[in-house]
Amino acid sequence: MSRPEKKQRTEHYVLYYWPGIPGRGEYVRLALEYAGVPYTEHHADLMPTLWDAAKIGAPPHFAPPALQLPSGRVVSQTGAILHLIAPRCALAGAHGSQLNTLTADGRAKIKDLSDAELERGEEERASVTQLVLSALDWQTEAHDVHHPVASALYYEEQQAEAARAAALYRKDRLPRWLSHFENVLATNPETAKDAPKVYLVGRQTTTADLVLFQVLDGHLFAFPRRMAQLKEGGEYANVFALHERVKGEKGIKEYLASDRRRKYSNGIFRHYEELDGEEESK
Amino acid sequence: MSRPEKKQRTEHYVLYYWPGIPGRGEYVRLALEYAGVPYTEHHADLMPTLWDAAKIGAPPHFAPPALQLPSGRVVSQTGAILHLIAPRCALAGAHGSQLNTLTADGRAKIKDLSDAELERGEEERASVTQLVLSALDWQTEAHDVHHPVASALYYEEQQAEAARAAALYRKDRLPRWLSHFENVLATNPETAKDAPKVYLVGRQTTTADLVLFQVLDGHLFAFPRRMAQLKEGGEYANVFALHERVKGEKGIKEYLASDRRRKYSNGIFRHYEELDGEEESK
Repeated sequence: MSRPEKKQRTEHYVLYYWPGIPGRGEYVRLALEYAGVPYTEHHADLMPTLWDAAKIGAPPHFAPPALQLPSGRVVSQTGAILHLIAPRCALAGAHGSQLNTLTADGRAKIKDLSDAELERGEEERASVTQLVLSALDWQTEAHDVHHPVASALYYEEQQAEAARAAALYRKDRLPRWLSHFENVLATNPETAKDAPKVYLVGRQTTTADLVLFQVLDGHLFAFPRRMAQLKEGGEYANVFALHERVKGEKGIKEYLASDRRRKYSNGIFRHYEELDGEEESK
Repeated sequence: MSRPEKKQRTEHYVLYYWPGIPGRGEYVRLALEYAGVPYTEHHADLMPTLWDAAKIGAPPHFAPPALQLPSGRVVSQTGAILHLIAPRCALAGAHGSQLNTLTADGRAKIKDLSDAELERGEEERASVTQLVLSALDWQTEAHDVHHPVASALYYEEQQAEAARAAALYRKDRLPRWLSHFENVLATNPETAKDAPKVYLVGRQTTTADLVLFQVLDGHLFAFPRRMAQLKEGGEYANVFALHERVKGEKGIKEYLASDRRRKYSNGIFRHYEELDGEEESK
């Protein structure tokens, strides 16, 4: 299927996030970069600003990322941000993306839809967000492997607990999450005849594909040995094919090659050799 | 402000969740009960069913809760479910609730809105969901206190790690979360003249209020000693007042007194005496 038309707006978005790491801000960056929507980043006094309704508007925010919209309103929580911008970026599925309330020509396309199209659009958009939230739960689990006791402590202060958590994560949870997304890809009715099957919802890129890409990419960095074993096993062929497909998408490809793409370091995804397990016999 | 009209639909919703515990299903139950929307529960073969697209439709689900909509489509992930049903339940704020795509008389009110009203409604709805997702992050942290190493292990298998996590949780994270929501309540411009201030967004009940109520309620069960100290300190007076206010709301009051309300047991919120800390001098 040819790439759907992207809805580009001229208004400006501002991403509030930590400089220097991909982190949770990366999910928002990927959506804006894919859609070619202009944005800048705000790094100064990040937490006092986001916590202060007098500066940021109501309601204030628990943590970044937060996105300032063309209206001036600021929304935080990755899942809420992506849900809001998905139709504007044509990333909410074929039906969900019709709910765009703000097109480039300033006209609300949503009013042309029948009641049935409105219902279907809302529900497809919700399915996309369901998968976004599941992939975000997965990344939180991946983070908690190296920080099982408390985020406020250093890794070195919880290394014994992390070793125990990592062994169980590599054995049980990591394959379980891969199985889930393989299951979603394999049972997508709109890609029934494709091989490989590389779209989570419908037959076009959604925010769910972008988030899954990033979570996989982070795992390939953090757990290279275990991920290589799981890839070689062949059980998750569609999942790994989605990672390759998204990597080459227009907008994403250019972004990944640019200096706007941060390197992984001490963020959500960290590579600690000792948490990646022993080389196992096949 | 008088209670806004609730949008009751006659179509039937089915909640897929574990029987016997409040758990994450409780957030969905509270929204439907508040709005007086009829629903039943599906308990049989829960996980094989939700994992199987042939039975449940595409995409399949990682975990319950999931909600079957009048259209037959099933959506999971608490945040996605609540975002979807919030306008239908008049729980998305004054502006966000105007985005109801399916009113009782089958007419899409959304088409009467101006472009500015559409944008404002979408953004208010996103702010409500932002607060829902933050409160859900908080409950996940509360769960992880008694299961820091892995959800698949028993508490007794990670009791030493849990004791360490609980001490830091009681001291740092619990006050931090309470401070955040106190800050949101205290800076809500629409309740500037109220005392106490008991609405997170606007001046009517939203899904965010209901989720915060339940997370507070769970903490009062799990950490009664620590919560009593924090309440007595007076710093979070609006937060505790919101808990009392929601408890008495029409729909919620009757639900809490009914046998549909499950007792807390071995779910997200668990009371382990040893995780609730020593009695401290004031």
